[in-house]
Amino acid sequence: MDRRKMLGLTGAGAIGAAAGGAVGLQIFDEPPPARANDPGAAVPFYGARQAGIVTPAQDRLHFVAFDVITDKKAEVVELLQKWTAAAARMTAGKDAGAIGAVNGQPEAAPDDTGEALGLPPSGLTLTIGFGPTLFRTADGKDRFGIAGQRPAALADLPKFAKDTLKPEISGGDICVQACAHDPQVAVHAVRNLARIGFGVVSVRWSQLGFGRTSSTSRTQETARNLFGFKDGTANLKAEDTQLLDEQLWVATGDGPAWMTGGSYMVTRKIRMLIETWDRTSLAEQEAIIGRNKGEGAAHGVAKEFDEPDFAAAAAGGKPAIAEDAHVRLAHQQFNDGARLLRRGYNFVDGSDGLGRLDAGLFFIAYQRDPRKQFVPIQTRLSRQDALNEYIRHTSSGLFACPPGVPAADDYWGRALFV
Amino acid sequence: MDRRKMLGLTGAGAIGAAAGGAVGLQIFDEPPPARANDPGAAVPFYGARQAGIVTPAQDRLHFVAFDVITDKKAEVVELLQKWTAAAARMTAGKDAGAIGAVNGQPEAAPDDTGEALGLPPSGLTLTIGFGPTLFRTADGKDRFGIAGQRPAALADLPKFAKDTLKPEISGGDICVQACAHDPQVAVHAVRNLARIGFGVVSVRWSQLGFGRTSSTSRTQETARNLFGFKDGTANLKAEDTQLLDEQLWVATGDGPAWMTGGSYMVTRKIRMLIETWDRTSLAEQEAIIGRNKGEGAAHGVAKEFDEPDFAAAAAGGKPAIAEDAHVRLAHQQFNDGARLLRRGYNFVDGSDGLGRLDAGLFFIAYQRDPRKQFVPIQTRLSRQDALNEYIRHTSSGLFACPPGVPAADDYWGRALFV
Repeated sequence: MDRRKMLGLTGAGAIGAAAGGAVGLQIFDEPPPARANDPGAAVPFYGARQAGIVTPAQDRLHFVAFDVITDKKAEVVELLQKWTAAAARMTAGKDAGAIGAVNGQPEAAPDDTGEALGLPPSGLTLTIGFGPTLFRTADGKDRFGIAGQRPAALADLPKFAKDTLKPEISGGDICVQACAHDPQVAVHAVRNLARIGFGVVSVRWSQLGFGRTSSTSRTQETARNLFGFKDGTANLKAEDTQLLDEQLWVATGDGPAWMTGGSYMVTRKIRMLIETWDRTSLAEQEAIIGRNKGEGAAHGVAKEFDEPDFAAAAAGGKPAIAEDAHVRLAHQQFNDGARLLRRGYNFVDGSDGLGRLDAGLFFIAYQRDPRKQFVPIQTRLSRQDALNEYIRHTSSGLFACPPGVPAADDYWGRALFV
Repeated sequence: MDRRKMLGLTGAGAIGAAAGGAVGLQIFDEPPPARANDPGAAVPFYGARQAGIVTPAQDRLHFVAFDVITDKKAEVVELLQKWTAAAARMTAGKDAGAIGAVNGQPEAAPDDTGEALGLPPSGLTLTIGFGPTLFRTADGKDRFGIAGQRPAALADLPKFAKDTLKPEISGGDICVQACAHDPQVAVHAVRNLARIGFGVVSVRWSQLGFGRTSSTSRTQETARNLFGFKDGTANLKAEDTQLLDEQLWVATGDGPAWMTGGSYMVTRKIRMLIETWDRTSLAEQEAIIGRNKGEGAAHGVAKEFDEPDFAAAAAGGKPAIAEDAHVRLAHQQFNDGARLLRRGYNFVDGSDGLGRLDAGLFFIAYQRDPRKQFVPIQTRLSRQDALNEYIRHTSSGLFACPPGVPAADDYWGRALFV
């Protein structure tokens, strides 16, 4: 049943509980009522593609990377089966499992942690990815006999100029991106997956984010990052179906068959030195980005979605968009046509002990082949981007996200492990 | 003007900006349109009380504590004046100041950081408090000549049993609690106050939160904390006007006149060991809390808002609500009638490097006198509460929150500093 309906039942059960024993709660499988255009509505879990990639970006993120702590393939497969079932339930706005005693065992821990009881599905999507270390650990061991299934496109990222990565918040064997319109729903989902994975996986790192900074659909207004600028104007969008086939989705023949219909995800935690930025003049900020702050239009054109004119000159003869402006260096025109579907979130992780907010962008980008997309773009940006003075890359992740789970008799990653 | 209206203007200005120079944006002072019952609506800033205390708890929090890094009283007073003006603007959904060049100075940094452009007021409230160290620093120095104005009720909190406080995320000379329905709006407000305070204050610590765990009005459903239980059922509520006069608001004669109409705030960051909790049976969880998980009813009664019956016995003769149950120890019946207005938020700060989520409750409580309310209640809880096995207090704060700013010619804390 719907988490909201469950409340009535638990109320009735409460009288029994008062006598001393916890009352079990039956799980039913009725889907929640459809609520189109409602931020509380459910996003379908089953399908040819994983949800959470071209799904219009929800407002909140909880991202988690796990280390697999077992060497037994069967335990990993069993976990993926359990996770898939729980993900299907939670994205539909149901509990992950019974919150009460199951099958008359009052001493069992609940199969749902309860903090999302009463909350609607909230657009929750759960998107899984497999990191390079799942295929071969650092000491070269092929724990699960899947080294031969590692795609060439899942090549370790190179070290980029100015990288200041912290290994303890980078990488991971398996990641889950939880996006929802309510952070409590996203947190509940990650926490229950971690709970279900006890003994098989361990949380390596996790990150909360808010205020989607990259719209992934033309139905959405472009949001702003913590530099105060619109971010994602030139992003690949769900409606660009032909471009998505070229740039986003892995095609037959691109590599091992298990990834066909999937996509590669790169994550970068990008600390922004916002106090320094905030003391920079608007003219300088706009020169660095290559767009104006209010409208988000590239210099030389009037509106946000007008194509930048990189040949245009400003008064005095200099380029209207500087040679080292972010918008120029990141544009497909200077990157052999390579584009990304970005899906990043702003973060504030408190303060840094030096009187500054620990804030920035948790960058997430999906693509067909990082070797042809993220890697060359970031190589160029890391060397030349005027923005580098104001940012530090502190975490990095690379994950192969398989295609969707078509139906309830299948599970995440089956084609990789069979 | 409203941040949403500004977008049109900046669009028009963009053409000029493209020619090379940033275009200044005039600030107007029209209030945003009233939107009753709209989570995007503005909460009035001016009034006899500070907003953000009995205001129905918004969904998101950004809390910040500052150290004052000047010894000059005049600089502190000037900052409080600037902050008050910026707070009045931002809570009304306006920018903190011009985002463009001001008065024809194109090289000035913007007076607003921009990331909330286009967003509605989102119920933003900004609530200020003054910590004990503002009145006298650790080395005993009375920096601002206000030591005589320190209220007796602002006595340093004692060390409680099992406290594991980190000084670097505790205390602070001045705090601001920013609550809003959109985290980007709350973060924008704190960030702009920090920007305005450059050179006078420094961010000591800051904390984000979500999913209000304590409703402060009978118009709100009780939300759930990360133990999965309803939290705030017995909270003081905005509608309890007589109780609020007894328990929440500082009255004439309680202490120095500048605090009359104000309230004292205690903050505690409470890490929850959620992985341990999640492996505890429902029966045990419910015994520890003293309520059932689904409905939130105290053991022995049927509904959430039924008064707990602490004398009731369960089958076997034991108390239905255990002697060490949280609900019993925290109840006013066992605390000389003392109550709190709680306004806490859930937090997840990533993971702890040990495979666990770094999650819990950022507890905020308002009261008339901590010596008679928080201190005795927490003394009891810290010694006896069965919940202590699953929580750790890692940060603590105590702040005197003055009454509201009645009108635009006044400012936060004037009566303390004049």
